[in-house]
Amino acid sequence: MATKKEGILFPWHHGTGAQPSYVEELDGLKNWVEKTRDSGSKAFREFTPFDWAALFLPCLRWLRTYRVKEWLLWDLLAGVSVGFMIIPQSMSYANIAGVPSVYGLYGAFLPLAVYALLGSSKQLGVGPVAVTSLLIGNGIRAMVPGSENIDNPNNPGEFAGVQDIYNHKVIQVAFLVACMYTGVGALRLGFIVRFLSHSVITGFTSGAAVIIGMSQVRYILGYKVPRMDSLHEIIEVLVAGRAGFKWKECVMGLAMLGFLIGLKVISKRVKKLHWLAALGPIMACAISIIAVVAGKLDRRGIKVVEKIPQGLPSPTIGWWAPVNNLGPMLGLSAVVMLVDLLESTSIARALARKNGYELSYNQEIVGLGIANFAGAMFNSYTTTGSFSRSAVNNSSGAKTQLAGFITSMVVMFVLLFLTKVFELLPYNTMAAIIIAGVMGLVEFDTAIYLMKTHLRDFAVWLVAFLATLFLGIELGLAAAIGLALLIVIFESAFPHTAVLGRVDRTTVYRNVEQYPGAEMVPGVLVVRLDAPVYFANVQWMEDKLVAYEAEALRFARANGIDRVEYIILDLTPVPHMDSMGAHFLEELHQSYKARGIQLILTNPSPRVVRLMERSGLIAKIGRDWIFVRVHDAVVNCQRSLMQMEAGGSLATPTWQPMGMVSPVFQSEGGAEPNGAAAGSRGGGPVAPGAAAGASLGL
Amino acid sequence: MATKKEGILFPWHHGTGAQPSYVEELDGLKNWVEKTRDSGSKAFREFTPFDWAALFLPCLRWLRTYRVKEWLLWDLLAGVSVGFMIIPQSMSYANIAGVPSVYGLYGAFLPLAVYALLGSSKQLGVGPVAVTSLLIGNGIRAMVPGSENIDNPNNPGEFAGVQDIYNHKVIQVAFLVACMYTGVGALRLGFIVRFLSHSVITGFTSGAAVIIGMSQVRYILGYKVPRMDSLHEIIEVLVAGRAGFKWKECVMGLAMLGFLIGLKVISKRVKKLHWLAALGPIMACAISIIAVVAGKLDRRGIKVVEKIPQGLPSPTIGWWAPVNNLGPMLGLSAVVMLVDLLESTSIARALARKNGYELSYNQEIVGLGIANFAGAMFNSYTTTGSFSRSAVNNSSGAKTQLAGFITSMVVMFVLLFLTKVFELLPYNTMAAIIIAGVMGLVEFDTAIYLMKTHLRDFAVWLVAFLATLFLGIELGLAAAIGLALLIVIFESAFPHTAVLGRVDRTTVYRNVEQYPGAEMVPGVLVVRLDAPVYFANVQWMEDKLVAYEAEALRFARANGIDRVEYIILDLTPVPHMDSMGAHFLEELHQSYKARGIQLILTNPSPRVVRLMERSGLIAKIGRDWIFVRVHDAVVNCQRSLMQMEAGGSLATPTWQPMGMVSPVFQSEGGAEPNGAAAGSRGGGPVAPGAAAGASLGL
Repeated sequence: MATKKEGILFPWHHGTGAQPSYVEELDGLKNWVEKTRDSGSKAFREFTPFDWAALFLPCLRWLRTYRVKEWLLWDLLAGVSVGFMIIPQSMSYANIAGVPSVYGLYGAFLPLAVYALLGSSKQLGVGPVAVTSLLIGNGIRAMVPGSENIDNPNNPGEFAGVQDIYNHKVIQVAFLVACMYTGVGALRLGFIVRFLSHSVITGFTSGAAVIIGMSQVRYILGYKVPRMDSLHEIIEVLVAGRAGFKWKECVMGLAMLGFLIGLKVISKRVKKLHWLAALGPIMACAISIIAVVAGKLDRRGIKVVEKIPQGLPSPTIGWWAPVNNLGPMLGLSAVVMLVDLLESTSIARALARKNGYELSYNQEIVGLGIANFAGAMFNSYTTTGSFSRSAVNNSSGAKTQLAGFITSMVVMFVLLFLTKVFELLPYNTMAAIIIAGVMGLVEFDTAIYLMKTHLRDFAVWLVAFLATLFLGIELGLAAAIGLALLIVIFESAFPHTAVLGRVDRTTVYRNVEQYPGAEMVPGVLVVRLDAPVYFANVQWMEDKLVAYEAEALRFARANGIDRVEYIILDLTPVPHMDSMGAHFLEELHQSYKARGIQLILTNPSPRVVRLMERSGLIAKIGRDWIFVRVHDAVVNCQRSLMQMEAGGSLATPTWQPMGMVSPVFQSEGGAEPNGAAAGSRGGGPVAPGAAAGASLGL
Repeated sequence: MATKKEGILFPWHHGTGAQPSYVEELDGLKNWVEKTRDSGSKAFREFTPFDWAALFLPCLRWLRTYRVKEWLLWDLLAGVSVGFMIIPQSMSYANIAGVPSVYGLYGAFLPLAVYALLGSSKQLGVGPVAVTSLLIGNGIRAMVPGSENIDNPNNPGEFAGVQDIYNHKVIQVAFLVACMYTGVGALRLGFIVRFLSHSVITGFTSGAAVIIGMSQVRYILGYKVPRMDSLHEIIEVLVAGRAGFKWKECVMGLAMLGFLIGLKVISKRVKKLHWLAALGPIMACAISIIAVVAGKLDRRGIKVVEKIPQGLPSPTIGWWAPVNNLGPMLGLSAVVMLVDLLESTSIARALARKNGYELSYNQEIVGLGIANFAGAMFNSYTTTGSFSRSAVNNSSGAKTQLAGFITSMVVMFVLLFLTKVFELLPYNTMAAIIIAGVMGLVEFDTAIYLMKTHLRDFAVWLVAFLATLFLGIELGLAAAIGLALLIVIFESAFPHTAVLGRVDRTTVYRNVEQYPGAEMVPGVLVVRLDAPVYFANVQWMEDKLVAYEAEALRFARANGIDRVEYIILDLTPVPHMDSMGAHFLEELHQSYKARGIQLILTNPSPRVVRLMERSGLIAKIGRDWIFVRVHDAVVNCQRSLMQMEAGGSLATPTWQPMGMVSPVFQSEGGAEPNGAAAGSRGGGPVAPGAAAGASLGL
């Protein structure tokens, strides 16, 4: 029995002296860099010229293996479908952002092409999106005085100067967002969005969707009322402006909205017609433009786009500097980047999982960053992966990034030859397209699911939703982000800890709260720390230990022992510690020592042992008091306690560890994982009279 | 053997049907409220009238048990010592904040008295502090145009109007900080400062201390140069202004600085004279005031305070509204509150631990909040616990909050009778007092300790320190907070997970990375999740499981099995989950099922089981696939695998759990913690040929 011994010992522990400190950390860093470098399909040194080229132009990979016969038709179909969808959508979103409609078309052209060359998601539908457009519109409007008076950004009339400043600022935001994107991708900081929980995000986007939808109602009613950014203000303004009602706009807008919703319902009900919903917007555009042309409606008070410059975008690099209001501009850009990054990566992730390929997050983020650079260079505002268009792209069967490239070619065709046609597109139709589009973003079903499963998450959803509705989109987002951070800090600050007891005379120790039958030894407290011990949680662990000690003392006294002699910390679930963690253990050791309590550690991980060695903690606690198993430590304590009782020398306990149950640093063969074997070799029963069946009852 | 059986089963699991969802969560909330209410020394219903009074006036507690003979002398001594210290300190700090010196004295009077009545720390030395003063000074100066030209806030001359606006704003910040403090205390959100690690804080305060010290050099050199807030700018300005050098100021300032540092050194070396350092500032004041009077120096170019209004502060409630620049004012107040809260609670905590009494955090925070309300009502800027004065208070032997009250009485005496004297206090002496004071805040020894123990923490210290030095205090603090948040998010986003293997034929399963001898069963993957499964970390867990599965598949193939049949998730260290966690497990189950892999869960905690029930997850996975122990699950999988091999029916595995090793929801007596017993009853060896000695080598 138990012939194999090396398994239970720390394999990485060779020398005994304190190790060099940051030299080793630097080694760790070097290893990490090497591992990361090697984590690709090939190590750098095996790189062929093709691999090097593909590193900078990732499209080479899918182009080389492109199966023309199998894929081309699907990519064409998907690309054209999304192209039909993105033309009216991007123009409408540009309107939300407060820039000329053509900015949306520019955003649907070059950034898409660049992303197709550099991005790693095969189905992501890049372009302008609704929520970001609203954020940019509200943010820039607050910075440009007078811009709230502009009625039609395509034809600002007397406000041409103000609109020009406004446009410059929007391009600058695109540039700043591009810089941030690229920085986050290059520094591998993509994880920063993970603190934003699903509840926070859906709450916020649901609220934003309602605001976006409600903000378009004025175009359907034909009013000329100021833009507002909270629900009650929008309703107030709509009610106050009811004198401006125009029945023609309203009939046309409602008809278009009904048409779009009808198509949506049909495509959901009839599986064969699922492509109808995607073609709805372009069909609505066609119908309403024909109506305008046939009925000469634009001269009878139907508001249309009016002006779209023909041709490809001209360079706007000269607009990047100087950036006025740098602080607010950086803030706005950071918020836009955060929302974009989150939306885009979560869609790309879902699509990659569905289609069974691996996504390279950092390439993905850098790809979006460079796409945004291209946009900022050529007159487009920020772009990211759109939920609705990615879904259509995927369901239409897009196989590679070629689909996105084809979409951008469709947009280019419109820019070159069809701008005159879209100049007749009525605002009411754009409004109907937006309203029909954002309806899918209001996720009440998520809210209901959350209410059923997790009340806290539902509360978070509700706060984010209501704050966005009634405090405006910026404060709503701030509240959502603050709440998410609060929860992450809360989770970090209050880690789980458990008092352990011995289960049924085995060598297994489990949480006494979960296993009320688990036996405690009076005078010995066993606590498991269930998290990395670091700055955010040491305070709570300290508080918890104080409380546990008080309980353990009560339990010991009830069993005839007048104090807690040993406190065992099981470090099994502690993957690492920081300097605060080491400091915490040191203070703990000192304060226990002062009160005659011995601190014992069990099963520390290699990283934790290294840190404890460097900070001198192991020397202070003593290698004799670090065990591999909780059971060894407990048996050892029990022996000491029994000896004390037998000798009557409670004041000077014998701190000698027993030969039979050896601490980890002493003998190689002693630490013994088999509980039955340890028991049969004289581990002895657990203080029979006192402890049997007793529990802390914490 | 093993006669006791109920211990291992879930004691809280009675019914089998799905439980009502939020009703139960509300019950949980109710329990929490009740537990919290009961967590005091007495439950509310046992409250005597005294307890009720003490709830609103906590000083009654210590007043009732006050031991006059033992404590009064110590409290008097400590109170007067701190009083002597706080008078010059508070006047100097007011200068840093850019308000008249008397504001500092006011801050050392009423807030102290109020804190003594309401606070829970017996030794905390409340009053104006250096770092906050700098934050307020820089923040308000940016908001009040023209204020950078004010040379002496006590006697602003032509800038009286600007100084008046400035003062109003400072009082408003005090009011906002008081509101935030009280809110944080009442809502029990004190934990929010825990994300600020020791490294971040000491890095920031060290940098701020250097900036504060350097900003005072101009008073010692006698220059009249603009205030700057980054090190290189300060040095630049000092070099550029060298023509304004005044040797009298310089000699006097350096003499005072030498005197103070000398006293500090003596008090450190000679233990009996430790009180000297505390008395240094007041002695320096006395000497320099005598020098000014004797030499009539103020008329010969020594800059003195000039004007301190006599008497108690007048009410300033009328200054609270209206608040202009609300956004930046709220931001500044939040930052000030955060720094104050952190400084104060960490000192109070350390003092309570040293003196062996319990601190009530929320009472503490509310106490500081109300003290700040009192300050904002009566002409004082924000106050909090000071590190240096708390240390002196403690070392002078303060026993109760009475010491703080006595300090405030000393300050009152000065306000009533000695203002004329302190009007002659030279700026160079105040500068020397500040420089000698902040020298202790520059913690290079912490930096060295961090460098030795934990490289990441050292890097954080360095970034916070250098950013504060060279980017200014606001951006430095922003960088520090950002960095700390980044680390907390990082820690939350990348939880530890481990592949488990069976150690030495026991029933113990451990991390195969730490125990390379631990045995894996080909076709069965056991993974332990070492953190609560919630929104911040599900993505990482998902990625990890994909990687583990690929490794497990390689290992299975190497052992003649062509796929992974079972994936066991050990949930022992998972205290709770949120809705994202449930969703993650559900998706996992579905994707595994689609690929013919069975998901098995072991040892979920009661909270996790409840959540899984509510979200319908248990019904989907099936109760048969949830076990108490990893070993039971593994043995069960092995049987199925062996049956498959015997029957040759790999395509249709027999999903029936074995009778011998029962899943937790089925039989009451089957789950069996004793490994030896399970083995003797036919658990069988672990796939001997294939698995012995093999390891994943992850």
